[in-house]
Order: sequence, then C-alpha cells, then structure tokens
Amino acid sequence: MSREVVRATYWIETPHELQRAAEVMAGEQSTGTFIAVPGETAEVKERSAARVVAVEALEEAEAPSLPGSKPPSGHDGKYRRGKVVLEFPYHNIGPSIPNLMATVAGNLYELQEFSGLRLTGLELPEPFAKAYAGPRFGVEGTRRLAGVYDRPIIGTIVKPSIGLTIDELRATVRTLAEAGLDFIKDDELNASPLFAPLEEKVKAVMEEIERVADRTGKKTMYAFNITGDIDELRRNHDLVYNAGGTCVMVGIQSVGLAGLAYLSKYTQLPIHGHRNQWGMMTRCPALGIEFTAYQQLCRLAGADHLHVNALNSKFYESNESVIRSVQAIRTPLFGGNEAMPVLSSGQSAATAAETYEKLGTYDLLNVAGGGILAHPSGPEAGVRSMIQAWEAAIGGIPAETYAETHPELGEALRTFAR
Amino acid sequence: MSREVVRATYWIETPHELQRAAEVMAGEQSTGTFIAVPGETAEVKERSAARVVAVEALEEAEAPSLPGSKPPSGHDGKYRRGKVVLEFPYHNIGPSIPNLMATVAGNLYELQEFSGLRLTGLELPEPFAKAYAGPRFGVEGTRRLAGVYDRPIIGTIVKPSIGLTIDELRATVRTLAEAGLDFIKDDELNASPLFAPLEEKVKAVMEEIERVADRTGKKTMYAFNITGDIDELRRNHDLVYNAGGTCVMVGIQSVGLAGLAYLSKYTQLPIHGHRNQWGMMTRCPALGIEFTAYQQLCRLAGADHLHVNALNSKFYESNESVIRSVQAIRTPLFGGNEAMPVLSSGQSAATAAETYEKLGTYDLLNVAGGGILAHPSGPEAGVRSMIQAWEAAIGGIPAETYAETHPELGEALRTFAR
Repeated sequence: MSREVVRATYWIETPHELQRAAEVMAGEQSTGTFIAVPGETAEVKERSAARVVAVEALEEAEAPSLPGSKPPSGHDGKYRRGKVVLEFPYHNIGPSIPNLMATVAGNLYELQEFSGLRLTGLELPEPFAKAYAGPRFGVEGTRRLAGVYDRPIIGTIVKPSIGLTIDELRATVRTLAEAGLDFIKDDELNASPLFAPLEEKVKAVMEEIERVADRTGKKTMYAFNITGDIDELRRNHDLVYNAGGTCVMVGIQSVGLAGLAYLSKYTQLPIHGHRNQWGMMTRCPALGIEFTAYQQLCRLAGADHLHVNALNSKFYESNESVIRSVQAIRTPLFGGNEAMPVLSSGQSAATAAETYEKLGTYDLLNVAGGGILAHPSGPEAGVRSMIQAWEAAIGGIPAETYAETHPELGEALRTFAR
Repeated sequence: MSREVVRATYWIETPHELQRAAEVMAGEQSTGTFIAVPGETAEVKERSAARVVAVEALEEAEAPSLPGSKPPSGHDGKYRRGKVVLEFPYHNIGPSIPNLMATVAGNLYELQEFSGLRLTGLELPEPFAKAYAGPRFGVEGTRRLAGVYDRPIIGTIVKPSIGLTIDELRATVRTLAEAGLDFIKDDELNASPLFAPLEEKVKAVMEEIERVADRTGKKTMYAFNITGDIDELRRNHDLVYNAGGTCVMVGIQSVGLAGLAYLSKYTQLPIHGHRNQWGMMTRCPALGIEFTAYQQLCRLAGADHLHVNALNSKFYESNESVIRSVQAIRTPLFGGNEAMPVLSSGQSAATAAETYEKLGTYDLLNVAGGGILAHPSGPEAGVRSMIQAWEAAIGGIPAETYAETHPELGEALRTFAR
C-alpha cells in the first residue's frame, strides 16, 4: 500500500490545548468524527488516519480572531496560537486537486474548536506532477511567443476596463500595438460583454495586431479574457487560436482550479491566470490560505502567468507578501513548473529599479497602465521608458544616470517618481 | 441597449467617507480605475458605469477589521461601517456566473480603501434563469426518487469518513440499508480513494442496495461523491447512473460553480451539493460572502441539495444563520429553483421538534450519524426514532407524549436529549 503523504501546515488559534486541537484536525479530516464510531478500527486507522507531525506554540491572544469558537469548560480565557503540521495518507485522496482541497481545507474552517485556521503550506507527492501537466508555456514559452528576451515583458491593460465598443477597442489596440507594447490584456471585468462579444473582439483585435506586425515585425501578445462556463472555455480558446492569437486569460476563481486544469489539458496557448476574488480567501490573517501554498495548485493546474499584485500597489498586500509570492512562483515544483509572475498596479519606469532589487529577477510580466499611457510624450515613449528603466536596473546603472542618455526614461522619472 | 442590471449589496468598513468608498467600488468594478483614463468618455460611462444606488451608515469602529487599509491624510481614526447597494449594467457581464463573480466580487476585497468588505445580497436579472437550468430535481424530484413524502428524508453518512475497504463498505451499507434509511451519503473526504476506487464502490454499494430493495421494496438513495476534475464528472456520473444509482454528490468549492453548472447540464440524477471549504469564504464577518447571496448561484448552477449545517451543530455557525440559510434556499428564485436543505451534524430524534419549530418546514434532508447508529436498540430503531420524532413534530404532538406509544423514540430521547 502506498505510504506517500500529503503534508499540510496550518496556523491555528484555539481555546483548547494546541495538541488536542491538532488531533481534532487530523481526526475530522480522516478517519475520525466528533464521536467515536464503531468502524474506526485499528486497521482503518493504520490505513487512513492523518498524523499530527508537529505542533509549535506561538503567542496567546486574549480574544478570539473569528466568531463562533466554543471554549472547553474551565477555559482560562486564552486563545492559543500555533503552527501545526499534518500528514494525510496520499491514497485517501488520489492525484486530484478537487479532492485534495476537501481534505486539506474542507470543513476545517467551520469547526468550533478553532477561532482561527489558515492553511500556510502544502507539500504534495509525485503523483500530482504526473496527473497535472503544469504550465505548458511558462517563462520560456511565453518569451518565445512574445519575442522578448533578457528583460521583463512589458504590458498594459485595455482601459476603460469595460465599456468600449468594438470600434473603440480597435482604435485603442492599434495605438497600443503601435506604441511597441510586448503584451496587452483584457481587464478581468471584460470577457464577452453583450455590446462587444468575444468573437468580435478577437477578430478586431487580431486584425489590428497583425496589421502593426506586418509593418513593424513585432506581434504584440494579447491575453483575451476567455473566462466563462466550462463548455465555453475550449470554444473561446479556439476563437483566439484560430485568429492567430497568442494568449488566453482566465479568472482562476471564476473557472475554478478544476476549470483551469480542464483548459490546460487542451490549450495551445499560454494561460494568463488572473487572481480576482482571491482576496476573499486570504485577506483575513486568521482564515483561508496563504498564496505560497495556493500558487502550487494554480501552477499544477496549468497557469503559465500568475498575478501577484506589485510593490507599492493600490492593493492592501504588503511588499513582503508580494516578494514571497514571486519567490514561491519561481521555486521549482517537481523540478520545474515555474510560472511567470505578473506585476500589475501602480507600475511605471520609476518602479523598475526597486522591483528588480527586491525581486532579483526579470522573468516577469510587468503590466503598467498610466505609467505607459500617461507618459508626457505619449504611449510609445512610455513603453520605451519602461524598457530603458529595466535595461538600467539589469545593467546595474542608476536610473538617473541612464536617463541622461535616454530622454524617455528621464521624462518618466520626472512624471512618475514618488 | 439592455437596461437590465445586476444589483449587489455589501457591508463595508472604510477609513474614508462612505459615499466616496462606494464610488471607488463602483468605479473599480466598471469603467473607472485608480487614475483618470482618457477613454472614460460620457458614452462609455453611460454604457457601462456601475451606479451607487444607496449608502447607509452603520456604526463606526476604532480599529480596522482587516489589515492593509490605507487611511486618507487627515484621517480621524474612525473606520466607518455601512451598507452599500450598487447596480452593474447587465450587458457588461452577460448571463455568466464566472463573469458575474469577477464583477460583484473580483478585486474588491483587496482594495486599500477598505478594512472590511462583504457581499451580502445579490439580485440577478432574468437572463440568468434562461442560461442556467437550476436544480433539475429539487425537493419533488428527490422525494420521487427516494419514495419519501410528508416528512424529511432521513439519511446518514458512511463512517469512518475514509478508510473502509470495499468489503467493509459493503457490510456497512448493507446494515444501513437494512435499517430502512431513506438516504446514505459518502463523506466529502471520500471520493475515489486508491484502495476503494469509485468504480468499485459504486458496484458494491448498488449491489447491496438493490439486494435490500428486492426484499423490502425500499431502494435507499445513495449520494456517491463524484468530486473530481472536470473530465471525470460526466464519467463518474455515468458510473452511478448506469449502476442504477439515484444521486451524485460534489464538493461545490472543489469543482467550482462552473464545474457544478457543467455537471448540471448533463446530469440525470439529483446533485447533492456539499459546501466544504465554504467556511473560508464566510467565517470572517468583515470579508467574503453571505450564504444568502451565494446560495442563489449554487441553485442556478444546479445544486438540488445544499448543505446548511444544522441547529446546535459542531460547527461555528449560529442557529440564526442556519435558519436564514434554509429560508433563503427555499425562497423562489425566478419563480422556482428551490433546493433541498441538508441538515447535518449533531442530529437525532431529539433535534426534530426544535428543528421543525424553528425552520417551519419538513422539506429537508436530515442526516444523522451517531443519532442513528448509536441508538441503544440499533440502527433500525435509530431510523424509526427519527421518523417518529418528525411525525410527532409535524403532528403537533410533544415528543414525550408520542414516545409513550413509540418506544424507539422514547429510547432516543433518553439517549440523545441534551
């Protein structure tokens, strides 16, 4: 019988003793239940019980982080925080992300024994790597299709996020492609609006991109938002692929990890994984999942690109958390499966130096809106300024020095530096 | 152009003025972004801007509920709570639950303007009812297949949750079916373990159920947990259907609403919708989604049965919340689409009277574990005691009175009453 395990790490808060709380977790999520049942024999336990591998006490709190926990009788008023490591027999689950989630997350969040519970780490056995293809393009495949090497891929989002007619979109894409952008994406709000359905969007956008490419030799990668119901995913993918498109985008929470894996089995294009709705699963520090754990599943399920916000963005996330996310995505999983981090929000030529210094990589998709469109000399200068900023950063040259011979960068720094 | 709208209600907490925060939400999730963009013309706004319909101030808090909010300069230290109603033009989205979620939830949870944000209500326009089939069996179809009328369907979960071999499962199911149960379900942890794969489980379970049915005329409904990746859902459904099974179960968060809708288009059996992982989206009061909003999407996507915990359960949820959930599920949506609430955890004959009094319905799937298996006279007496308890409750007879002539109920009350 297989002795492979799934190892999961949690941050917990509980009015109970930590060891007892950890045992409740292991029991609830394997052979036990809230009362002893006759069939939980030694053989069944040997076969399927989860094991508490480690319990480490952290600080104590005076009040519960989440409502609804039920202290034991004689409770001393303390809510104990700790780190718990559990091992689940792999053969309970099989190589299945949907069933994995029922085990490592499942009903745990609702148990009365806890006033806080967060999945912080996950180690999967080898069969998951065999069952899921992982990113089919990743950094290399994306660079090949975009024709961009030795620096980040520079991109933008079509704005306004929603509301452009096909003709307005056409004009916008023309401007952006002519500006020399490597990459353009739909907003997550913009998939197939009734006044500009995906089919027409794909046709118009690809005509504009091909027209610019014919003239300049540069074919901008466009991530079409193909988010939709399951039976639309392949159909939408084919619309893009058959029109000569080079990227598809999905909202991972919208299609589910199962939907992502389904598309991944079929795709002939890189999958741009958007993370909208993810905040609900992670912003409360006492609940949910850490991205460092979750991103593994997104990668296995086939995301080639993964959004991670950005340093100093408009979002709540701390820079430390963004850095951890980027490092996590680039850490090999089963010897590979790296996805390309997408940095978006508040980006411009002025953010490149700090970004490179803190992240230590330029295998990035760096998406700027205002930082390109609002450049004083126009979008083309905006794109140039971003490229120049990254050349300087990668070359170890202070941006101000490089700006002396690169006027677009100089203008951008004067406009966008905080 | 369509003037239909999606209306969403939120609870928010913000260091900003409530009206300004509401406008940020509407802008972010439609035509605006964090800086003015040139293309946001009057026409685009007219076509696609979301509208702030109502802002209602609630109490103020001294500290933020969630980390990462950024107060405006000159902040008075107050975090304002309020109720906000937004309307989104339906034609931005189309009749698509995946794209709806990107709009009504999306990136909202991550914005720095908020220290708390929760989607509490949702009103969808008619085209959603045309695009999604809703529950194909619901209460009536389930009753017809289970052959149970005029009282709740009485069920149990195979325990231990995980670890039984096929032979052990066979013996357990035989005992339960012989006890006269209306309904048996797999645990959410138990889908297709390597030591007891779904295919073999289906064969063994259905043989036992048919054998009992041949003798007694009663064919127990068994909800097989077919949770898996998308391409497994139809295959697993067919395994169950072809073996004469009468119900399939999925973890809704595991397969995603998109996965559920995909199965629903195909299913010939009621779909038992399990809610594991849902706690992560709802337990923090300052984040996530209210079940009363979310359950509409589960129903549209095809859940015939929906778990709602139970009164006085082992879970954190309050009784008030459970009651609201049951009422929500039974409230017609587009003139129908009611799902069957599944009450599970801590159930027995002793809980029927209060449950009926508080919920006012017996269109329920009432799932008991220990309350049946641990009955002093055995599982058959356990099932009888549950049925008797509901007969008494529905007939308006005190359980103690009814127990005088129904000994199984009497024993159950003495054993399980708190």
